Amino acid sequence: MAFLQSSEPAQATVINTGSELLLGRTLNTHGQFLANALWPLGIEVARQVTLPDGDSIKTELLRALEDSDVVILTGGLGPTTDDMTRDMVASVLDVPLELDVAVEATIRDYLESRGYLFAPHQSRQAMVPRGGEVMPNPLGTAPGLFFGPDVLAEFECRALAVLPGPPRELHPMVHEELAGRLIAALDGGHADSIRAVDFRLVGVGESTVTELLEPSLASIEGLKFGYCARISEVDVRCVGSDEVIDRARRKVVEFFGDQLIGEKGESLVGVVLDGLRERRQTLATAESCTGGSLAGALTDVGGSSDVFVGGYVTYSNAAKVRDLAVEEAALAMHGAVSEEVCAQMVAGCQSKTGADYVLACTGIAGPSGGTTEKPVGTVFIGLGLPDGRIKIEKCHFRGDRCAFKQRVIWSALDRVRQAMK
Amino acid sequence: MAFLQSSEPAQATVINTGSELLLGRTLNTHGQFLANALWPLGIEVARQVTLPDGDSIKTELLRALEDSDVVILTGGLGPTTDDMTRDMVASVLDVPLELDVAVEATIRDYLESRGYLFAPHQSRQAMVPRGGEVMPNPLGTAPGLFFGPDVLAEFECRALAVLPGPPRELHPMVHEELAGRLIAALDGGHADSIRAVDFRLVGVGESTVTELLEPSLASIEGLKFGYCARISEVDVRCVGSDEVIDRARRKVVEFFGDQLIGEKGESLVGVVLDGLRERRQTLATAESCTGGSLAGALTDVGGSSDVFVGGYVTYSNAAKVRDLAVEEAALAMHGAVSEEVCAQMVAGCQSKTGADYVLACTGIAGPSGGTTEKPVGTVFIGLGLPDGRIKIEKCHFRGDRCAFKQRVIWSALDRVRQAMK
Repeated sequence: MAFLQSSEPAQATVINTGSELLLGRTLNTHGQFLANALWPLGIEVARQVTLPDGDSIKTELLRALEDSDVVILTGGLGPTTDDMTRDMVASVLDVPLELDVAVEATIRDYLESRGYLFAPHQSRQAMVPRGGEVMPNPLGTAPGLFFGPDVLAEFECRALAVLPGPPRELHPMVHEELAGRLIAALDGGHADSIRAVDFRLVGVGESTVTELLEPSLASIEGLKFGYCARISEVDVRCVGSDEVIDRARRKVVEFFGDQLIGEKGESLVGVVLDGLRERRQTLATAESCTGGSLAGALTDVGGSSDVFVGGYVTYSNAAKVRDLAVEEAALAMHGAVSEEVCAQMVAGCQSKTGADYVLACTGIAGPSGGTTEKPVGTVFIGLGLPDGRIKIEKCHFRGDRCAFKQRVIWSALDRVRQAMK
Repeated sequence: MAFLQSSEPAQATVINTGSELLLGRTLNTHGQFLANALWPLGIEVARQVTLPDGDSIKTELLRALEDSDVVILTGGLGPTTDDMTRDMVASVLDVPLELDVAVEATIRDYLESRGYLFAPHQSRQAMVPRGGEVMPNPLGTAPGLFFGPDVLAEFECRALAVLPGPPRELHPMVHEELAGRLIAALDGGHADSIRAVDFRLVGVGESTVTELLEPSLASIEGLKFGYCARISEVDVRCVGSDEVIDRARRKVVEFFGDQLIGEKGESLVGVVLDGLRERRQTLATAESCTGGSLAGALTDVGGSSDVFVGGYVTYSNAAKVRDLAVEEAALAMHGAVSEEVCAQMVAGCQSKTGADYVLACTGIAGPSGGTTEKPVGTVFIGLGLPDGRIKIEKCHFRGDRCAFKQRVIWSALDRVRQAMK
């Protein structure tokens, strides 16, 4: 995570509550998610604590309010009696819990629209410690809560956020409700006018993104930003007003317009499948080194059968000859990992399936099998186009066997995305 | 995690140190791993704290020693100056740091046997706070440290373990070095005589394992045990003396001998590939609902090309007809998800590839596509045997699309494992 801040980062304590997090059943991913989400806002996680449901939460909360600029408390917002977070916050802040009738109505609507009855104990979730702002939760019944500097006057802390435990509810709430409030609490300004956007880039490394984009983004006044890199993807996180985000978007598009796949959490596989579906076009695969994992990634997405017609996993030379009509002579002369064989794999798959797009790959995943001329990590990626043309590219990817496979898959899928433009 | 304890569990605090854990780069899996590993020993994680490298570790360690029965501290054992864990432990325990020449020699051997020079700063890793027992680390240079009740006399805590940060070094050290010491420290007895073993079962659910096995295991005096379930796998963790482990093994074999794939962390894919390699037999796949992910799982393992000759991802009906010679009439009469089509997929793949074993699957992964007769989750799994026979089984698996795929894959692979017996 690279970052650029005008001043020392604010210090945050993250407290994750929930006995399930300490029983080994559930992996606690909140720490990592929040670290990535807070960093671009100029907030550093200085301590992360996981606690079971119970009174130790109060002690830890008080300690955090006294030694941190920002406190994030997750979990324990459900309707049952072991969901005590609201009560504990009210007790530590020494304010009464009050029923928020608007929140109660929202919870009632949420449940009834899904065919559930609103039970009296659900009202617990509409209790708000006085001074707390409600952060709506469109994906569940428990709203989040936010306490700003005024309510926290007697503590060191300037912002306390209380968030639901399930990641699918917590993640959007952090981006859509919390980010702006945190910036307003720490830097001043109006929370409503601040948004957080992740520009997702594929097919480019983090160091290239940083090098080319950072000077431009740094010159945009009022913009906070950071990066989050995964294998074959980089998210550029930008936080600021609409106008500031627009300026950042123009810079991202200027440098990496070809690599930008979306700003709403889009996945590359989804973008490719949706693009093909819109065009009523089909895709087939002919895999050697990825060994079925490219087809597997496509079929992990529901509805992929509209687009993906099938594939060949031609791991052995015999399979390449039999299923894709690769010539024995080409295998003998150039080897299985070669431009010629890759092109014949594409052609064979085109002729068998008649798919509009064909992806083929043949390479050396390792750990063994490399030579001086073709070291481990060498791969040929072939693309068959709707007009019948075939494009082959030679690449080299780092990483262990599984990382190599993923890089090849992302690179192959990105070729289809680019070709559809 | 089910468990069975004769008394209230001991309370542990886990402190994970390392700035990388708070920057969002690295997902902290220590909490989950340690919760699973400590539970069968009668130890419950009551608090887990993640801290950056720095002085806050000392404060937290002191607090934990004062309010916990067991303290586990991870990370910061490397040779560089920000690896301060040894110094901090010595300071908090108020004991001197002493050079352990045997440890220094081990580190020197470890490095030199891998072609590295032993640099003077490496000696840091051989410094041991007085009273600490060294826990050897065959997978790295940093040994672990253990402090028992004698050294901790002035604290509430009865056992302090200091472990290396990298999971691949930490995991075996917990099982092989720490488990026995913790039991000895908490319950008395000799650490050397106590071992921890994970019996890995596939193709059986946790509730069945618990129901059948628990009464038998509970009757073995001196045995501590627990379960760790993943999709399609259950580990039965047993801790005790060699004799006690032998008795537990006999019970595991009595009830689940067919499901037991190993006790050294074996993977089902690895067991199947190794079994076929030993027999010089081959495997091919014909996938519909798993969409290439079965082949992908096989080829995630290095050297799988010895055994796995290739596969067909026949996602569309046209592909089933073209590539596997499935009859149009069978598709029309019985549908793609049927015993007849599954059997024809196996036969087609046998005849195309000549592989000794063939796996085929056709089912409804969802979320849409289900009917009253064949609801989402229905799947036919076919196995072609070396003698040409074909076996088909109809199954139903729960879970979202990806969980469904994994359950089908594990179930299919387990059929090959069972057939090889």
